[in-house]
Amino acid sequence: MAEITRTLHRKTGNFLEDFRPGQVFRHKGGKTVTEGLFTTFTEFAMTSNPLAKNARYARAYGYQGLVVPPGLAMLVAFSQTVEDVSENARTNREYIDMRFGAPLYVGDTIEVETKVLGIVPHRKIDNLGIVHVQSTARKNVGASDEAVVMTWQRKVDVFKRDPVAELHSGEAEPDAVDCELWLPPFDAGADYKSMAHLSSADSYFEDFEVGTRIEHSRGRTMTTEHIHLTAILDNTSQVHCNQFMIDQDPKRYVGGQLIIFGGIPFTLCLGLSSPDIGDNALGDICYPTGRHTAPLFAGETVFAATEIHALRDHPDRPDLGIVEARLLGHKFQADPAAEKDSENAPAGWKKVPIFELERQIAVKRRSHYA
Amino acid sequence: MAEITRTLHRKTGNFLEDFRPGQVFRHKGGKTVTEGLFTTFTEFAMTSNPLAKNARYARAYGYQGLVVPPGLAMLVAFSQTVEDVSENARTNREYIDMRFGAPLYVGDTIEVETKVLGIVPHRKIDNLGIVHVQSTARKNVGASDEAVVMTWQRKVDVFKRDPVAELHSGEAEPDAVDCELWLPPFDAGADYKSMAHLSSADSYFEDFEVGTRIEHSRGRTMTTEHIHLTAILDNTSQVHCNQFMIDQDPKRYVGGQLIIFGGIPFTLCLGLSSPDIGDNALGDICYPTGRHTAPLFAGETVFAATEIHALRDHPDRPDLGIVEARLLGHKFQADPAAEKDSENAPAGWKKVPIFELERQIAVKRRSHYA
Amino acid sequence: MAEITRTLHRKTGNFLEDFRPGQVFRHKGGKTVTEGLFTTFTEFAMTSNPLAKNARYARAYGYQGLVVPPGLAMLVAFSQTVEDVSENARTNREYIDMRFGAPLYVGDTIEVETKVLGIVPHRKIDNLGIVHVQSTARKNVGASDEAVVMTWQRKVDVFKRDPVAELHSGEAEPDAVDCELWLPPFDAGADYKSMAHLSSADSYFEDFEVGTRIEHSRGRTMTTEHIHLTAILDNTSQVHCNQFMIDQDPKRYVGGQLIIFGGIPFTLCLGLSSPDIGDNALGDICYPTGRHTAPLFAGETVFAATEIHALRDHPDRPDLGIVEARLLGHKFQADPAAEKDSENAPAGWKKVPIFELERQIAVKRRSHYA
Repeated sequence: MAEITRTLHRKTGNFLEDFRPGQVFRHKGGKTVTEGLFTTFTEFAMTSNPLAKNARYARAYGYQGLVVPPGLAMLVAFSQTVEDVSENARTNREYIDMRFGAPLYVGDTIEVETKVLGIVPHRKIDNLGIVHVQSTARKNVGASDEAVVMTWQRKVDVFKRDPVAELHSGEAEPDAVDCELWLPPFDAGADYKSMAHLSSADSYFEDFEVGTRIEHSRGRTMTTEHIHLTAILDNTSQVHCNQFMIDQDPKRYVGGQLIIFGGIPFTLCLGLSSPDIGDNALGDICYPTGRHTAPLFAGETVFAATEIHALRDHPDRPDLGIVEARLLGHKFQADPAAEKDSENAPAGWKKVPIFELERQIAVKRRSHYA
Repeated sequence: MAEITRTLHRKTGNFLEDFRPGQVFRHKGGKTVTEGLFTTFTEFAMTSNPLAKNARYARAYGYQGLVVPPGLAMLVAFSQTVEDVSENARTNREYIDMRFGAPLYVGDTIEVETKVLGIVPHRKIDNLGIVHVQSTARKNVGASDEAVVMTWQRKVDVFKRDPVAELHSGEAEPDAVDCELWLPPFDAGADYKSMAHLSSADSYFEDFEVGTRIEHSRGRTMTTEHIHLTAILDNTSQVHCNQFMIDQDPKRYVGGQLIIFGGIPFTLCLGLSSPDIGDNALGDICYPTGRHTAPLFAGETVFAATEIHALRDHPDRPDLGIVEARLLGHKFQADPAAEKDSENAPAGWKKVPIFELERQIAVKRRSHYA
Repeated sequence: MAEITRTLHRKTGNFLEDFRPGQVFRHKGGKTVTEGLFTTFTEFAMTSNPLAKNARYARAYGYQGLVVPPGLAMLVAFSQTVEDVSENARTNREYIDMRFGAPLYVGDTIEVETKVLGIVPHRKIDNLGIVHVQSTARKNVGASDEAVVMTWQRKVDVFKRDPVAELHSGEAEPDAVDCELWLPPFDAGADYKSMAHLSSADSYFEDFEVGTRIEHSRGRTMTTEHIHLTAILDNTSQVHCNQFMIDQDPKRYVGGQLIIFGGIPFTLCLGLSSPDIGDNALGDICYPTGRHTAPLFAGETVFAATEIHALRDHPDRPDLGIVEARLLGHKFQADPAAEKDSENAPAGWKKVPIFELERQIAVKRRSHYA
């Protein structure tokens, strides 16, 4: 055995002073979507759209097979950026202009690049700043079906390594990324009606009404399963999986316990809304903005609601309409002083919003499909 | 943003007064069996039959590949009926005449229909009644290998929505469903013996004796994993996954905690019995009847036993015999007053039966296979 | 119903007096690697080598597709031997000469044989002895790509069934097993550099220095997920999954609680070391020796470090070097008396080594690949 003469403490991820406007990260790893990942996440979140459940249905609609739902596409693509962008972050501040392109299938391999659009010091907290990035996920790089699967911007609060380091403050222009939702062509000869019983009967474009808020009926209690789920996404942030680190200095970390990766309530809220909102969608077009408004911990139960804000014709597709909606996630916290409130929190409980997301969804018209 | 002018509380599933004799549900969704689902459930339950573990063995026996074991086929098919039939149920009362047909493989897509056979008000509880249904699961609808995978009846206690609603009491005849266990032909030229070491040596037809009770050696402690498992089956019943709902009114729910979906002990007991009973089975022919006799909760350990009640020749297959058995599941509950009893519960513990199932199994004869 | 006239208590696995020098077990079951198993384990352990994440990368390097990492190959192969060799063991004592051969892919089926090399009574404990075995795992037996995937020896402490039974003490020669790490040929025309951003930039052969200890930055808290993980590996040892058994006699079992299967920290430590050590490896050649030095329980957080002990040219491959290293796993235990020590345990905590493994790894040279 060799004598050990030096010890390295490897640290991963960048700190605030490491970022430069215009800098581009080609992220490590990449990720092939296996049937294992697909099942774990699609179904964990109670996604009900048959495009993600029933391969016969998906193929009849013109897809190659089971379609990865947008929540899982987001989880896979986003997680690829964590080590470079947010391993040393305190919190994810905002999702911006998240757009979907080519469909993602089991067997496809995702690779992601990120461009730094801005670095701004925090106004009040010395060792913190806001990093603004644009990320783009491609599938099957170099193959004939190479395509952009999604692109998005986000702002994230990143710690400094050295509290007195100079920042490379500044801005860079976002790249113009060609990323528009691929839609299977409407086939006038196809017998869509024979499969109409497989999706919910009351979530066609004609069923939505501007000004409606839909409280989705189901809740889902999260367990410590989140540690495993986060690991299999390659999300390496230690605040999700290293209890010992948190026990050393609980006050430094939100809630003094392992916090659930934000992508999980993101996906779970999409899933909980799915029977009422997404069952007859052909895809999510974009999420103009979104944010987490409170942390989520193991043992808490997640609920969701959707507000319908606008209904538009699809510019090219008479068989589809576009629903503009806001997805809202919440949990309840015990609060002995709370009386039963107007938002349906029972007495003794306080409703705590945890997530909100603007969505534009391409939804089938009953006139064409049922 | 549009102003929100109305709020909808979406409720899913039918209540007692919604059912009508003869009514048919074509269930939503459907489900493609992925390798993710297959692994999670087959192996979670400690299934040991090599047909479900070893693709070389399964193909050599004449199957297309790994065979979905009956417990998982049941879980997938049964769960498809939950939203329409039992989302608003208190409990599942009885399984009746569950029969298996075509083998189910990874990649196959299951779709299920249910016919209502009867509605009977509960004798003592005003807001409850018994719904009797017949369900049939087909695979690969519309394709050349479309086939019935299984069919079964069940009785379930369903709540009324409106305590004073009139019921559509009455009965309907069950459909005659052609569903007989598919068996790969015996190939006199095949070298089955060269693979005989891959299954247990003492579970051939010749090894069983009427009047024997076999206590299976293994136990398995369930964890809160059941929440995730139930979600990925598309079983949407809230009593399995919504702790907040239960915390609001614990007395209304069995045990005041999340109850484990009955399909999980069903499958787990089959798995625990597998090394002693099912390792040399080519399939389960039918389950004439079965029921849950106590609930199961996270943290409890499940055990199983099998009683051998009859042994019959297979009418068409000299290489096989039919074992008629009763599968019994149990757990133990702390009971300070309990002395060590004749059924092997240790002092201080009471044995609690949780599940029983009549089984008819097609089992290989050693004379032909080993 | 037949009257039950006898009850059998089936026990599985061998006891110390059942083993004979030279005896060969052809283990039951076998196991096909599904995408479900692959994802659950590869990613659970935070493995970062793109060969196990990115099918495009793996194929470009000359593999058929995603490569099962050595930790998962070990888990699958080792678990096949548990019922016959160590179902009735107290503890696994030592891994010896574990060597890797053909690459293992999703879809491959593993079958394992074990030869008994020695039986020695324990010096101090009457009902215990050491069984020394050699196991070999083949894939796709009988097919054109049949190959040895790995071979290893281990020593395990096995209980006697009957405390006064005579042992078959003695020794047998190990078989000479042809098992050398398969390496994809170096292709001078391939554009490896275009993919170099997908693996870590500082873990090429040139980056290692003898005498260095690398503390890997990440920790991973284990949960009761280990019960499920162990079950899906077919590891049937009851000390990992039967809480009731342990509650009957806590003192008999290590720590009085379910102990985590040693293969899990084995794999997890490999995964935690992966970004710093294994990201540019083409494979693990062998593990000359390894052992568990303390048990691991749910709720504890695992960390790892690697010491670099030797660096050698690869005898046949100028594009590769061989790194000889020692992988070390540890956890921390609360210890009010402990002061902050030189090994970086914080005050109030004691560092507890749990695992050590000698590794020889075939690592790419930057000169050829980046």
